[in-house]
Amino acid sequence: MSKLLEDINSPTDVHALTDKELYELSNEIRSFLIDKVSKTGGHLSSNLGVVELTLSLYKSFNFEEDKIVWDVGHQSYVHKILTGRKDKFDTLRKYKGLCGFPKISESKYDAFGVGHSSTSISAALGIARARDIKKENFNVIAVIGDGALTGGMALEALDDVGFNKTNIIIVLNDNQMSISKNVGGLSDHLNKLRVGPGYNKLKEDINSTLSHSDAGKTVVECLHRVKDSIKHLLVPPMLFENMGVKYIGPIDGHNIELMNDVFTKAKQIKGPVIIHTITQKGKGYEYAEQNPNKFHGVSPFDLESGEAFMPSKKTYSKVFGDTMIELAKSNSDIVAITAAMPDGTGLKEFAKEYKDRFFDVGIAEQHAVTLAAGMASAGLRPVFAVYSTFLQRGYDQIVHDVCIQNLPVVFAIDRAGIVGDDGETHQGVFDLSYLSAIPNMTILAPKHLEELPLMLKWALNQNSPIAIRYPRGADCVKDINPITEIKYGKWEKIISGDKIAIIAVGKMVQHAKIASDSLKDKGINPTVIGATFVKPIDTEMLKELSTQGYDIITIEDNAINGGFGSYVLMELSKLDFKGKFKALGYGDSFVPHGDVELLYRDAELDPESIEKCVINVMK
Amino acid sequence: MSKLLEDINSPTDVHALTDKELYELSNEIRSFLIDKVSKTGGHLSSNLGVVELTLSLYKSFNFEEDKIVWDVGHQSYVHKILTGRKDKFDTLRKYKGLCGFPKISESKYDAFGVGHSSTSISAALGIARARDIKKENFNVIAVIGDGALTGGMALEALDDVGFNKTNIIIVLNDNQMSISKNVGGLSDHLNKLRVGPGYNKLKEDINSTLSHSDAGKTVVECLHRVKDSIKHLLVPPMLFENMGVKYIGPIDGHNIELMNDVFTKAKQIKGPVIIHTITQKGKGYEYAEQNPNKFHGVSPFDLESGEAFMPSKKTYSKVFGDTMIELAKSNSDIVAITAAMPDGTGLKEFAKEYKDRFFDVGIAEQHAVTLAAGMASAGLRPVFAVYSTFLQRGYDQIVHDVCIQNLPVVFAIDRAGIVGDDGETHQGVFDLSYLSAIPNMTILAPKHLEELPLMLKWALNQNSPIAIRYPRGADCVKDINPITEIKYGKWEKIISGDKIAIIAVGKMVQHAKIASDSLKDKGINPTVIGATFVKPIDTEMLKELSTQGYDIITIEDNAINGGFGSYVLMELSKLDFKGKFKALGYGDSFVPHGDVELLYRDAELDPESIEKCVINVMK
Repeated sequence: MSKLLEDINSPTDVHALTDKELYELSNEIRSFLIDKVSKTGGHLSSNLGVVELTLSLYKSFNFEEDKIVWDVGHQSYVHKILTGRKDKFDTLRKYKGLCGFPKISESKYDAFGVGHSSTSISAALGIARARDIKKENFNVIAVIGDGALTGGMALEALDDVGFNKTNIIIVLNDNQMSISKNVGGLSDHLNKLRVGPGYNKLKEDINSTLSHSDAGKTVVECLHRVKDSIKHLLVPPMLFENMGVKYIGPIDGHNIELMNDVFTKAKQIKGPVIIHTITQKGKGYEYAEQNPNKFHGVSPFDLESGEAFMPSKKTYSKVFGDTMIELAKSNSDIVAITAAMPDGTGLKEFAKEYKDRFFDVGIAEQHAVTLAAGMASAGLRPVFAVYSTFLQRGYDQIVHDVCIQNLPVVFAIDRAGIVGDDGETHQGVFDLSYLSAIPNMTILAPKHLEELPLMLKWALNQNSPIAIRYPRGADCVKDINPITEIKYGKWEKIISGDKIAIIAVGKMVQHAKIASDSLKDKGINPTVIGATFVKPIDTEMLKELSTQGYDIITIEDNAINGGFGSYVLMELSKLDFKGKFKALGYGDSFVPHGDVELLYRDAELDPESIEKCVINVMK
Repeated sequence: MSKLLEDINSPTDVHALTDKELYELSNEIRSFLIDKVSKTGGHLSSNLGVVELTLSLYKSFNFEEDKIVWDVGHQSYVHKILTGRKDKFDTLRKYKGLCGFPKISESKYDAFGVGHSSTSISAALGIARARDIKKENFNVIAVIGDGALTGGMALEALDDVGFNKTNIIIVLNDNQMSISKNVGGLSDHLNKLRVGPGYNKLKEDINSTLSHSDAGKTVVECLHRVKDSIKHLLVPPMLFENMGVKYIGPIDGHNIELMNDVFTKAKQIKGPVIIHTITQKGKGYEYAEQNPNKFHGVSPFDLESGEAFMPSKKTYSKVFGDTMIELAKSNSDIVAITAAMPDGTGLKEFAKEYKDRFFDVGIAEQHAVTLAAGMASAGLRPVFAVYSTFLQRGYDQIVHDVCIQNLPVVFAIDRAGIVGDDGETHQGVFDLSYLSAIPNMTILAPKHLEELPLMLKWALNQNSPIAIRYPRGADCVKDINPITEIKYGKWEKIISGDKIAIIAVGKMVQHAKIASDSLKDKGINPTVIGATFVKPIDTEMLKELSTQGYDIITIEDNAINGGFGSYVLMELSKLDFKGKFKALGYGDSFVPHGDVELLYRDAELDPESIEKCVINVMK
């Protein structure tokens, strides 16, 4: 470990460093980050972008008392390094290792846990109001990206901040990106701020105004001058001022001296203040600078070439994107919607091919769902591609705008089931629970990569809301064939066995198959059923199993509570079912981060555990 | 029915009327509305506020082709009157009668169904984009209140509108109210627009600019001039322009000629345009003008005195509010949060008594939940009072910000179960399903008004998220005593019977009790259990029932899917339960509007149906 970094063990250690040393430290931290993340994988670009910003915050504030909330939190590695966790970076995002996001339980310096976007202003405002009510005295800072700022809840929070005049410092980390390039009117507005004639001149202004102010001038007056010069220089005038929040910026987020000055003085401003910093995502690692998107969240990669060690496989996301392009050819009503995830969801190529039929709405899942509903009501066939965990943001809209009106919106739910390294905030283990309870919703889950095109095509021919949920990454099926035809509400009997039936959803079918193969050697021959439809369930097949006296095990990559198994059981209760029943899935606790195979084992969803479960049930 | 109104049977009938006749018609419509709503109950103030606005829209547009989306929709009565539904107003909000909100299935002129706030821009944008892709040609209008505009999804949509430059007309119906008085920085901003020196002058400007423009000037130039004059006159400058949306206004929303001019010309503007109209909620009915809040949603009332026929009873909301005031006295950490519902949730008095510990965040449920989480993380004891159906908006935040971090936020969930007249968009029948699946969440439901204070006090002493769900309105219990002590996860055996046990949640306990009393006469003596806790369930009591060979019926004022019954059944499946099981609740379809007693009967949740169910199960 490098010289300066070695001696940084608690937040206040940064206070003793000179500006020059802070620049040195920032170089050491960059090398550290690139080296560590190249081995563990993780979020690289956003962390490289905030090295100086974080150091300046640590120089200017006292985080033994002050509180900082990082929006999304994938840019919090530098913060973790500075708060006594640098020695744990080899375990980053690994099972029982360092979490990839801030987490209250991991460190007292993590004031608030995160993972999803746009929560920081709300949380920081809550902390600041608690401080005021308890008559305590410390600073509260939220660091939020320009992408996260387009999320509705961040705007709701900004509205409340502006009204309430609570003391709070919002640092806008503006890198012109969310994960992909930003979109939306607000982004346009920020662009204008950035490219306006004022930007360079402004930097000088701020420098001279802040550095050479007479002691006799109050800080507030001084900042007002800065603000006024911005107002003069930049067109259109401030969005934030209209919301009732004081605005300072834009300032260079890699200029430590400048930021130190601004942050130190911002502490003395009464009421909410937003400090607009401009940073470069990926800064300091050539490959990440050139392609910040690729290095947003990465697998382990080769330092020299910037290439990932693991070859990219044919993923569900890729198959989804390819299928969308194919289906859109013959049906001009098909449109695709994403909430700031054109890459992650596999829609990148579609976006190029069908520019006018592709809608990236930014980090705005609520709007995305109702936009889709509006489109469907007017005759289009919208497909909203979204990660399971982020669709939670659009829950009310699914109920209120899509399902009550029974509109033909297709939800292509990627990253359903556990996702692994990103951990509890990102595991997609609730979608079957929150979707199944909604009337008019149909839910399918492919057990095989090649079933996804079939399901998507089928879904686009229905006249009601359809959700297709599929896992992160590539397929791993062996000895299982894709179905070739979809029949509404019908399951697939993959193995006809006796005495016990395993009904598995999606990816879990493969686990059931492996368990069943292994059980055969022990003379047990379970029926294996693929639950092509999670909703509605195949009542006829259940009737058959019930009548024939089977025991039943359900397996799903979802919470047991409110999940697939509970629906099967409820149906069985109507059928005079006399067998034994067991539902496998995640128990009533959040699933932590780590390798998915290890997590499956913990949850007893791995083939070996399934095998044991079958033996136990049959006892 | 009055003279002009009589002849209005389809949207284009308004086209033939002169401005003078439109004013006459607006008087007729006001009388009609006041008369009808005084008898049926319903939303009055907001409809009285938009009479001229709606007439002007109908004069200026052709709704045989053009599409209009009403935000929230409680201001759509005039629209309903003009689209052939005036003869059905005696059935307003009644069982199988006219819906209180726009509804696609009710009329071809209802372009998009609503009920919840802030969806209109998203939906209208979806319709407009569908139009463009399908190369069709019509106008799309969203009418949104200034209150609804603070909802995050409206801001998300505005961001997308601004970026995309789709042709769409957004009419901002600015009455300075949501249901109660508006809050937030955005509202402040609108206030400045309203009270700035420009308002009166502006009206003249617009009149002269619009009426006397030379034919040679293009409309767009003309409107630009108006806009520029606004820019000059009003400070701070436009929020909306910064979002990339053209802005016209503010204009008087009761001046039909002026609005006709503006709407007609707005059609020719390329790209999105927002027209800011100022209206008076309750206009034309003295009592509603003086107290628009009271007449927002009303029961039948006396025309002369403005007083409701039904005396107000002691409701759950009232008891909640009183208890909050009481508990806050001895615990200075208790704070209350509402999302624009200080009256509805019963917090009005708390807000007066504890000004600094009361937070109305506006229509912003996402922010409200995470604000509460932030407060809880910093040592406060926040209580978020919210209707069941609106808490759906904060689902992700409950998972991600409250429950993952296991923070002690109390959710006081009012209007849980069916609410009746407001219908399917407002029935609170999913909360048990969407909350039960979330780890770390505890859920209680009082069966008796007097249990609510006890539960609230208990909840505020726990160190984890607690939800208390209670129904709309007053208590109706007879012969049932409130529990006097809360034991974590324990149910209450109300009647010790034999052979069959009815386990009921909240309000359904009374129904179970009545059924059980009646069954006694038939020689059947069911055990009746009050499920004080919906989560966790009382496994010991279930074990006891299972061992003793009981049949079990669960009853909940919630969807069966993913509801309380499914958790009980899942637990029973672990207990070698051999009895019969039946879950009562709402089936897999949305519950329409109407009297709650009729709806209970439809869903077989009334005492008589429960009685039949017991007899059937025991067969």
